[in-house]
Amino acid sequence: MSGSLVIVGLGPGSIDLLTPAAMRSIRAATDLVGYGPYLDRIPEAVSGQRRHATDNRVEIERARHALALAAEGCKVAVVSGGDPGVFAMAAAVFEAVEGGDPDWRDLDIQVEPGITAMLAAAAEAGAPLGGDFCAVSLSDNLKSWQTIERRLRAAATGDFVIALYNPASKARPHQLAQAFALLRTIKPPQAVVLFVRKAATPEARVLVTTLAEADPMLADMSTLVIIGAAATRLIPRTGQRPWVYTPRAEPGTMR
Amino acid sequence: MSGSLVIVGLGPGSIDLLTPAAMRSIRAATDLVGYGPYLDRIPEAVSGQRRHATDNRVEIERARHALALAAEGCKVAVVSGGDPGVFAMAAAVFEAVEGGDPDWRDLDIQVEPGITAMLAAAAEAGAPLGGDFCAVSLSDNLKSWQTIERRLRAAATGDFVIALYNPASKARPHQLAQAFALLRTIKPPQAVVLFVRKAATPEARVLVTTLAEADPMLADMSTLVIIGAAATRLIPRTGQRPWVYTPRAEPGTMR
Repeated sequence: MSGSLVIVGLGPGSIDLLTPAAMRSIRAATDLVGYGPYLDRIPEAVSGQRRHATDNRVEIERARHALALAAEGCKVAVVSGGDPGVFAMAAAVFEAVEGGDPDWRDLDIQVEPGITAMLAAAAEAGAPLGGDFCAVSLSDNLKSWQTIERRLRAAATGDFVIALYNPASKARPHQLAQAFALLRTIKPPQAVVLFVRKAATPEARVLVTTLAEADPMLADMSTLVIIGAAATRLIPRTGQRPWVYTPRAEPGTMR
Repeated sequence: MSGSLVIVGLGPGSIDLLTPAAMRSIRAATDLVGYGPYLDRIPEAVSGQRRHATDNRVEIERARHALALAAEGCKVAVVSGGDPGVFAMAAAVFEAVEGGDPDWRDLDIQVEPGITAMLAAAAEAGAPLGGDFCAVSLSDNLKSWQTIERRLRAAATGDFVIALYNPASKARPHQLAQAFALLRTIKPPQAVVLFVRKAATPEARVLVTTLAEADPMLADMSTLVIIGAAATRLIPRTGQRPWVYTPRAEPGTMR
């Protein structure tokens, strides 16, 4: 098969966080496939390049469409927010490969990494992911709430810093409240909680609070929530929001 | 204070994965501070820009030096591998701020995110981080082995995909073996294990194996190890290494 498919991570929003490798993959494509607002982020039009904008809800159909184009010989770039491998399009493409035409396994399929939301959110606040950490999506479109609770419980028991993707949506307004309620049964009330909205954009906003006081209604689909580990600390500053970081060293461990 | 400090993530190695925002921060600096091999990666010299190369072992001293330069009015960029907030320089800088001159809290300190190793490693293999995942550093320079075991146990119990940073070094050849031994008491022997060496470079190499057969001696400081969750799957291909991915959906959950 002569076609190819690359799944490209656009990063968190600003075109300044799109890697040169990702931009080159986009420019080299004959066909761009992606959710409309992601395609709209790509500034330079390449002459003759086709754009296939789709609805965000149909990731698996979008993946099949992209694979079919590649199988016809097109050079396809599937664009994805953040990093394509983190709660984004890469897994959908491989699901479609596994369940689809056996010839699709002969295609040249590459993944171009990108800046995922938790890295951009952490950078806005300081260095909250400085220790061991985990990433959990609160969306239960694709997994049961039971599994999400099991993961949150394990993450809290292991004292990981926890990054919550998809903390809330109009269809799921109560899940972040449930997650906080569960975490409060394991973690201390003064555990640091960060709400980072629109990280890496001019409208970025960081709220620093505690698990006891965290208001789940402050999160929307543009928010990444980070819950600190026991070691996560604030550095107070005069007239400014404190920096938040997780030290590399445990108390009592030599550096 | 008129000086500034930005902690810049260089990504996993290739200059093609350095974001334009990170490159701009590097170019705008009067002083670059970093581990020598990281500074060597930066191709374009800006006329009059000073480079302060240091040994990798002294992160906290490097951080203090950078802060002192910024306090003198310099525009300092601290360069870090991968993403500066993930097992890298950002936490060291904030540690130095907290323990240092109170005036340092008035400095303009920013973090520029980068592609962290696990994203590049995952992209080489397919989409193994497609579900909930966690990142654990096996280095016990800064935390106790007990804490590392507690985190590994929690990650396995919660059925996270696990990315192991710093899996081995000359000073610590046995820790990955100990980690695998612990994980074998919780996870099934057929759990997928990936060794990804020098991801995102021309010498990138991916080995796909199982937890039962994983040989810890195959890891070095250039290796990222990923251990799959129960759902992590292989897609066999004729004459080529299988793709590895973790589906977004749990078995039995509708998409």
